[in-house]
Amino acid sequence: MAYGLLKGKRGIIFGALNDQSIAWKVAQKAVEEGAVITLSNTAIAIRMGQVKELGEQLNCEVIPADATSFEDLEEVFKRSQEVLGGKIDFVLHSIGMSPNVRKGRAYDDLDYGMLSKTLDISAISFHKMLQAAKKQDAIAENGSIVALSYMAAQRTMFGYNDMADAKSLLESIARSFGYVYGREKKVRINTISQSPTMTTAGSGVSGMDKLFDFAERISPLGNASAEECADYCIVMFSDLTRKVTMQNLFHDGGFASMGMSVEAMSVYEKGMTK
Amino acid sequence: MAYGLLKGKRGIIFGALNDQSIAWKVAQKAVEEGAVITLSNTAIAIRMGQVKELGEQLNCEVIPADATSFEDLEEVFKRSQEVLGGKIDFVLHSIGMSPNVRKGRAYDDLDYGMLSKTLDISAISFHKMLQAAKKQDAIAENGSIVALSYMAAQRTMFGYNDMADAKSLLESIARSFGYVYGREKKVRINTISQSPTMTTAGSGVSGMDKLFDFAERISPLGNASAEECADYCIVMFSDLTRKVTMQNLFHDGGFASMGMSVEAMSVYEKGMTK
Amino acid sequence: MAYGLLKGKRGIIFGALNDQSIAWKVAQKAVEEGAVITLSNTAIAIRMGQVKELGEQLNCEVIPADATSFEDLEEVFKRSQEVLGGKIDFVLHSIGMSPNVRKGRAYDDLDYGMLSKTLDISAISFHKMLQAAKKQDAIAENGSIVALSYMAAQRTMFGYNDMADAKSLLESIARSFGYVYGREKKVRINTISQSPTMTTAGSGVSGMDKLFDFAERISPLGNASAEECADYCIVMFSDLTRKVTMQNLFHDGGFASMGMSVEAMSVYEKGMTK
Amino acid sequence: MAYGLLKGKRGIIFGALNDQSIAWKVAQKAVEEGAVITLSNTAIAIRMGQVKELGEQLNCEVIPADATSFEDLEEVFKRSQEVLGGKIDFVLHSIGMSPNVRKGRAYDDLDYGMLSKTLDISAISFHKMLQAAKKQDAIAENGSIVALSYMAAQRTMFGYNDMADAKSLLESIARSFGYVYGREKKVRINTISQSPTMTTAGSGVSGMDKLFDFAERISPLGNASAEECADYCIVMFSDLTRKVTMQNLFHDGGFASMGMSVEAMSVYEKGMTK
Repeated sequence: MAYGLLKGKRGIIFGALNDQSIAWKVAQKAVEEGAVITLSNTAIAIRMGQVKELGEQLNCEVIPADATSFEDLEEVFKRSQEVLGGKIDFVLHSIGMSPNVRKGRAYDDLDYGMLSKTLDISAISFHKMLQAAKKQDAIAENGSIVALSYMAAQRTMFGYNDMADAKSLLESIARSFGYVYGREKKVRINTISQSPTMTTAGSGVSGMDKLFDFAERISPLGNASAEECADYCIVMFSDLTRKVTMQNLFHDGGFASMGMSVEAMSVYEKGMTK
Repeated sequence: MAYGLLKGKRGIIFGALNDQSIAWKVAQKAVEEGAVITLSNTAIAIRMGQVKELGEQLNCEVIPADATSFEDLEEVFKRSQEVLGGKIDFVLHSIGMSPNVRKGRAYDDLDYGMLSKTLDISAISFHKMLQAAKKQDAIAENGSIVALSYMAAQRTMFGYNDMADAKSLLESIARSFGYVYGREKKVRINTISQSPTMTTAGSGVSGMDKLFDFAERISPLGNASAEECADYCIVMFSDLTRKVTMQNLFHDGGFASMGMSVEAMSVYEKGMTK
Repeated sequence: MAYGLLKGKRGIIFGALNDQSIAWKVAQKAVEEGAVITLSNTAIAIRMGQVKELGEQLNCEVIPADATSFEDLEEVFKRSQEVLGGKIDFVLHSIGMSPNVRKGRAYDDLDYGMLSKTLDISAISFHKMLQAAKKQDAIAENGSIVALSYMAAQRTMFGYNDMADAKSLLESIARSFGYVYGREKKVRINTISQSPTMTTAGSGVSGMDKLFDFAERISPLGNASAEECADYCIVMFSDLTRKVTMQNLFHDGGFASMGMSVEAMSVYEKGMTK
Repeated sequence: MAYGLLKGKRGIIFGALNDQSIAWKVAQKAVEEGAVITLSNTAIAIRMGQVKELGEQLNCEVIPADATSFEDLEEVFKRSQEVLGGKIDFVLHSIGMSPNVRKGRAYDDLDYGMLSKTLDISAISFHKMLQAAKKQDAIAENGSIVALSYMAAQRTMFGYNDMADAKSLLESIARSFGYVYGREKKVRINTISQSPTMTTAGSGVSGMDKLFDFAERISPLGNASAEECADYCIVMFSDLTRKVTMQNLFHDGGFASMGMSVEAMSVYEKGMTK
């Protein structure tokens, strides 16, 4: 069901890979809600994933960009404004990757070159995106920027490794830039801290299936799906949330405010007596 | 502009007094967005305020209730379901009052009978509302409940007095009941922590005008208005935020994440050198 | 091992019941560290518990007081100053009780008379204590007040019921009064949020043993014991923490910053596959 | 006044520059409290500052190290254990520097090479320190590590620039490594979030004097001094805080829990009417 919440708005969605991606669902819903958009991802992700199909499906241009390259990001904003015919109203940053996680390096045995890459790709890319946009004055007044984050930024999850630190940095950048972009251009910047989600990225985290089960049972509403997350992104892009900024918004079925539920404990208890 | 976000939904709005009230704007927007609603306030507020006019304007029933009376609240849910023709989809709690503040009692000279009243009216009323609703099974699955709160629940504001404690208690009740109502009926419960607002209640707080100015200048987007708060309530009542629960959501132009802005500091600096 | 951290200081310890009580350990350590103290508890707790023995052991007076009675609390401060020979340097509030928990009332079936009692005994008693002390100017400059709290104030724990709300209120009172007492008399007020502890009160919470096990395994340092909590209280009473105020200090082996540990997950996983 | 709190303990203090440095005061107090220590700073800081004098005063070795060099940090732990005769019980990380701040680059005009340096020096150095220590098993069981942080990690302060992001990253590293080091070796890791302090580093922040004045007036106990911060560090190194880990501890006279004080508002009000 669509409401026309983004009618007349222009957006850029970074990070859609395949139809499990949260960014994929956001792109689809944004178009359903009346927006015109461009998509961006790395050249290799475009080759290996299904982004081109999504572009065709939604009739929108796919702009390759390495999110660690300031020049590439400049190009995305420049090209998107040309294609979409004006300043950008909303942006989704759904980008994260840790070579340390991929290579199985433990947190007390990090490779520091890889840590730099984790931070560059997953967090500093957000600053570059915002700085590139602001230098071009590419975002329309009352524009809305969202980056996807995860609870590990606040509470340690074994196996999430240096991505936890990257998400903390990402959330800090949202606050720091939110002040500057807000006071000057009324642009708001928030992060959405999403439930563990069975995307391609999520599935790569060690022990993800168990964590997913635990989060499902401890959260009174269960885990939030990628589709529900997309709904929440739409809301944050709409004109109905214009005074929300510099926030980390938990979208997790209640997980963030739970200490222990009967449901999760009943499973834990079985394990105790085993 | 309306989107039909609440089409087919039934709601109850507690606490509209006059056209400066946040609850008043929520009522208007809810109806614009397609909902049918009832209004409730105390008998005396109905007599002295303009609630009846609002009821006529929106063509909805006004049900008198003392929010500290469990029986009265039971009646509101019972009657609202009859009038609206089914279970309730959303509820707004916008109720708060401190006799200590009214009588000018300082925080280290509280009257404890009055403190009890502050807590009963401003916080425990929310528990009673939820318990009354749940016992009748009055809230529809995926229903959404919002209570209005204020930053003083986390950070001390001189002059806000025992209302700060009441808001902390209110936010805790939202979490505690959010777990129970979420797991059993998928009902979500959140608080919105709103900027200082020049309502009848807000204007009663000592030093409110100065605090309003400070908040306006430190918040990158400025203070959120009553109307903008109503927009955010609508979003929280809609089907697009179904997995957000047990949260305190700052709706304050960025205030919550600010330490100091250039704008507020430039005023402060003038005061220093005076 | 003792350091003389409280040499020459005078204190009041509220809430010691028996040798499992945190307050009991705090009383012992305070005396070891050089303080002179008085003890206070309800008349019935004094009759039924071992407080008198503790008083004899530590050679200190036991002053009966109902912590919901402002007059009783005034008397404790008056008498303590007489007995100890001067203004009070530190106070411990370790008082909490929920009739709803005792009677097995679920959170969506609370008795509101009992809820009032829970709040009066467990939270408002702290305000009364502070107001009684301040009106007599009973606390010495740079004095330190600590109340014991629990994580349920932030994150819902099934079975903790309305005590969660009481702890939220307690922590808010610490902040609100901390501002007033700090600016006027340099008195600091903090809460310590302690691990689940197997005291007489703690053991009464439903499912406590399982929660204790979970907390033990998720906290990298394991649960904090009553004795370790007493050490932390001493530190907060000492002159080495004079600028810490209005804080809720987690003393929990790391629990507050954990999302999930390998250790807790390995038990949970066994329960999943069972 | 000394208590012998660190009797028999061995420590390393990173970051003492001159007698205004917090690290300088921590070094002095640690020795007063019975510890033996080494000092470390960069070669250039040793040449230009007064660290050597401090070393002579405290009769302890000064080990030059670039905190961005893993090898240098390995050497500090190796050499310190030799000199001090055993495993290390406590470490202070008081290191931070932003080339962007120094060069006057605004937050929306960052140089990304400089941002990398800010993060490397101010945050990743902490991970390297911990990883170097753990690989050598250099920290004794129940050891305590503290890094100094600042409120800008949570709330944006104009002019603090990319140091805010560095402090967020630093605090995240404390949590992430705190889990690993805690479960394996009972080592605790915390950050202390200190008031604005008139050190050499602090004085470099733009608008620091005004911020200092505002913080002084809004904090009920006033700003915490470098000396008081040193006291708090000693407490965190002592055996009395063994179960506190993964925490960010506000040491700021109450600033963190304040929204607005009468005292700060009275200055602000003067500026309003000017």
